Amino acid sequence: MSRFVQVVVTLKNAVLDPQGDATVHALSALGFDNIESARVGKVIHLAFKNELEPGQLKEQAALMAQKLLCNSVMENFQIQVVEDKAGVP
Amino acid sequence: MSRFVQVVVTLKNAVLDPQGDATVHALSALGFDNIESARVGKVIHLAFKNELEPGQLKEQAALMAQKLLCNSVMENFQIQVVEDKAGVP
Repeated sequence: MSRFVQVVVTLKNAVLDPQGDATVHALSALGFDNIESARVGKVIHLAFKNELEPGQLKEQAALMAQKLLCNSVMENFQIQVVEDKAGVP
Repeated sequence: MSRFVQVVVTLKNAVLDPQGDATVHALSALGFDNIESARVGKVIHLAFKNELEPGQLKEQAALMAQKLLCNSVMENFQIQVVEDKAGVP
């Protein structure tokens, strides 16, 4: 039982990502020349009001992603149930 | 051995997040009234040129986050080594 979900929204592979390219160039200018590519996306941490089973959390978060958080024409989303507000397990 | 890292950059708790508040309101307007709060952050998927041990990947990505990807005044970052380009394990 948890009430925290992390939704990661990333551009589809076919979509150009100038922000990611700029990140690669900036890292290279700082001396980090071992990066092949970078892609920049969004992360949304949702805190539900009530604790739910992981399956229910994922199901509801997926609906929210489809309806609001993710533009399915050019973006994919991935959902993880997490232990606490801060995020990544 | 992997060459993919996911860096999640989120606002510190003390920092107001109007984009997150707008997300809560928009979800509520769509009928999802069981969300207490939402926080919006960035995710950066880095693909290194060479495979490295997870420890080395994390160390290098942390340096990059400190120097470029994260504004440490108002943001935190978390690093995960992932299996493939797409991201979340």
